Amino acid sequence: MSDVSFQELKPPPRILLGPGPSNISPRVQMAMTQPMLGHMDPYFTTIVADAVKLLRFLFRTENEITFPISATGMAGMDASFNNFLESGDVVVIGVNGFFGERMVDIASRCGAEVVRLDVEWGRIVESEAIEAALKSRKRVKLLALVHAETSTGVLQPLAEASRLAKQYGALLLVDAVTSLGGHELAVDDWGIDICYSGSQKCIGCPPGLSPFTASKAAQDILERRASKTPTFALDISMLARYWVPRDSRFYHHTVPICMLYALHEALVQIVEEGLEARIQRHLRHGTALQAGLEAMGLTLHAQAGHRLSTLTTVGIPSGVDDLRVRQRLLNEFGIEIGGGLGSLKGQVWRVGLMGYSSTAENVLLFLSVLEKLLVEEGHSLLAGAGVVAAVQRLR
Amino acid sequence: MSDVSFQELKPPPRILLGPGPSNISPRVQMAMTQPMLGHMDPYFTTIVADAVKLLRFLFRTENEITFPISATGMAGMDASFNNFLESGDVVVIGVNGFFGERMVDIASRCGAEVVRLDVEWGRIVESEAIEAALKSRKRVKLLALVHAETSTGVLQPLAEASRLAKQYGALLLVDAVTSLGGHELAVDDWGIDICYSGSQKCIGCPPGLSPFTASKAAQDILERRASKTPTFALDISMLARYWVPRDSRFYHHTVPICMLYALHEALVQIVEEGLEARIQRHLRHGTALQAGLEAMGLTLHAQAGHRLSTLTTVGIPSGVDDLRVRQRLLNEFGIEIGGGLGSLKGQVWRVGLMGYSSTAENVLLFLSVLEKLLVEEGHSLLAGAGVVAAVQRLR
Repeated sequence: MSDVSFQELKPPPRILLGPGPSNISPRVQMAMTQPMLGHMDPYFTTIVADAVKLLRFLFRTENEITFPISATGMAGMDASFNNFLESGDVVVIGVNGFFGERMVDIASRCGAEVVRLDVEWGRIVESEAIEAALKSRKRVKLLALVHAETSTGVLQPLAEASRLAKQYGALLLVDAVTSLGGHELAVDDWGIDICYSGSQKCIGCPPGLSPFTASKAAQDILERRASKTPTFALDISMLARYWVPRDSRFYHHTVPICMLYALHEALVQIVEEGLEARIQRHLRHGTALQAGLEAMGLTLHAQAGHRLSTLTTVGIPSGVDDLRVRQRLLNEFGIEIGGGLGSLKGQVWRVGLMGYSSTAENVLLFLSVLEKLLVEEGHSLLAGAGVVAAVQRLR
Repeated sequence: MSDVSFQELKPPPRILLGPGPSNISPRVQMAMTQPMLGHMDPYFTTIVADAVKLLRFLFRTENEITFPISATGMAGMDASFNNFLESGDVVVIGVNGFFGERMVDIASRCGAEVVRLDVEWGRIVESEAIEAALKSRKRVKLLALVHAETSTGVLQPLAEASRLAKQYGALLLVDAVTSLGGHELAVDDWGIDICYSGSQKCIGCPPGLSPFTASKAAQDILERRASKTPTFALDISMLARYWVPRDSRFYHHTVPICMLYALHEALVQIVEEGLEARIQRHLRHGTALQAGLEAMGLTLHAQAGHRLSTLTTVGIPSGVDDLRVRQRLLNEFGIEIGGGLGSLKGQVWRVGLMGYSSTAENVLLFLSVLEKLLVEEGHSLLAGAGVVAAVQRLR
C-alpha cells in the first residue's frame, strides 16, 4: 500500500513569458500562507466584500453581480454561456482564434443555435461582419467576442460591437482573460453585459479564480430562465447569494480561501500601482518587445494596429525548430514562452508580458536570449538590433 | 477611480473544528509559495503525474481516470452527475441529509429521473430500501450515496449497497468529501464506480480541488454518451486528456498551480503518516470527542454505530442560544465549529476533527471551552466530566 513513489516538491524558478500563468509577486505568494479561515467566518466575509469591491474597480463597473468564480477562466467561459443561454437561443460568436472556437463548443453544449463569424486567425472581427450576423437571424440573444485572443495576440475593438449589440437587442459577452488588468477595459462605459477573466494573467494572482461580472440586463435573463442552469457549481444566481448577498449569506460551496487571499493582495497591488499606470506599463513593455522583434527581422502575426501589449505572437522563422528553441529557452535560461495553438501550432511563438512578468528586464533578457538561440540555430540576424530597438521604447 | 477602499489582509488565527476547511500544516502552507510554473512545464507535469499516483493510493484504486478536478467538492458532485447522466436516465439517490438533497438538485438539472430514497436525517440508508428503489424501475443507471454526510455526521455503509448496485446493473456513485483521508474507503475493493472528494477536509489541503476517480465501467459510459456533457470545464473525458494522457498532454484549462503544490505536499504527508495510522488517528479523536460530549450529558445526533469520526453532530441543549455559543467560541477562543444545515439549523452543532485539525489537544480544548460556555449560558453540567471521559480514549 505505502510503496507509492513520488518526488520532493522542488519546482525550479522560471521566468514566465508564456500565455499564462505569469509570475506572481512575493506579496501575493505570501498572502496564501495567511491563517486558514472558514468560508463563513466573519473576518473572511469582510475579505470577500473587499474582493467584490476591488473587482468592480478593476472591471470599472457598478454591477451587483461581480465576483470571482471559484475555478479557472475556462469555468468563467462555461458559466457565461451556460447561465445566459437556453436551448434554442441564438448566439453570434466571433471566431478569430482558439478561444472563439472554444466559445462555439461551449455554446453548442447549451443547445444554442450558433452563428459563427469566422475571421482569419490574427485579424479582428470587423463591424460590418458583426452587423451582418446580427441581422441574419430574427432574434440574437448574445453577441460573444474575445477581447484579447490569447492564441493570436489580437485586441478586438469593442465600441462599435457594443453599439450594434444594443441596436439589435443582443447582450454583449466579452472574454477578457488576457486583457483585464493589462489593457483598458470599461465594462459599464463600453456597455458590456457579461464579462469574465482569469486570475493568473494580467492580474498577477495564481491560476484558480475567474473574475466575473454581469449587467442588470444579463441578471434579468437569469430571473426569466425557463429551466435551472445545467450545473449547480456554476449557477450564477446561487453563487450571487454567497458573494453578494442581499440578506444573509448562503452557503453554496467552500470558497478556495488561500486563492482569495492571493486575489485580494493582487488587487490591492493593482490599486497601489494605479490602473492607468499599470495599463501604460503593459503597453510600454509590449511595444518595446514588438519593436525589438521587428528590428530582428521577425514578423509579428497579429494585425497591425490591433496588437495586444500583454501577449505577442511572432512568426517562427523558416528552418528554425519550434520545439528545440522553446526547450532551450526553458532549460538553459528558465524562460517559458508559448507555442502556437490550434492551426497556429508550429507557426508562431506566443510571448506574454503580463502582470508581474511585464518588466523591462524581461523584455531585454528575452530579446537577447532569443537572438543568441536563433543565431545558434543557423538563422542570420543583425547582432543586437532587437535589444537596441527595444530599449529605445523603454524610456 | 482609485478611491476604492479595502483593508490590509490580516486573518486572525483560528482553530478550525467546523465542517471544513480544516487547518493545514505549515508544510502544506509553504508548498504554495514554491516558484510558479506553467501548466505544461515538464517539471510541473511530473508533479501532476505524482498527484495522480498519490490520489490512486488514497482512493485505493487502479482507475485510469483519477485526478483532482480544478474546483471545489461541489464541482466534483456536479461533474459526477453531469458526465454520467443524460436526459431520461434513472438515478436512485439516498437522501438522508443536506448533501443527498443537493445530489437530487444536480441530477434533476441533468434531466434525469430521480428516485429519492428519503431517510430521516441522522440515520443511514438501509439496504432493504436501496433494493426496493433499484427494483422500482426497469433500468437504474446510477445509485448515489453520501459516504460521510457532513450535515448529519452519519457514515453510510457501502458493502451491501455495492452488491445491490451490481445485481441491478447500476453504477455506484459515492460522495466521499468528508471521508477520504479520514475514514476507510477502498474504491476498487468496494466496487465504487464514481467517487469525488474535497481537498480541504481530511486530506489537509486548502479548499479548491476535488479529487475524483471513475471506474472502467463508468468510463465506458462517457464513450457511449449521445451528447457532449453540458459543461466544458467539467468534461471528464477532456480533463483526462490533460491529467492522464494516453499520448501527448492536451491543454484543457490552466491548472491551479499553487493548489496542486499544496495537494502534492498534503498527499505526501498522508503517505508519511500511513493511511491506516491516519484513519486510526481520526477514529481515536472522534471517539474521544463523542465520549466526552455524552459524558457531559449531551446527545449525539447520528445513529449509534454509524457515526463519523471526522465530523460529530451534537444536539444543542434546550435553552442554549446556538449562535451566541458559536460566536463566543470564535471570538473568545478562536474556535470555529459549524451550525446545523437545512432542517437541522438550530438543532445541532457540527464539530469536525479532520486532517491537521484532528488532534488530542483540540478535543480537550474544545470540550473544556464548551463546558465553560454552557455553564455560563445557564446549562448545568457535571464539572470536568467531558474532559475526563475523553482523555480515557486518548491513550
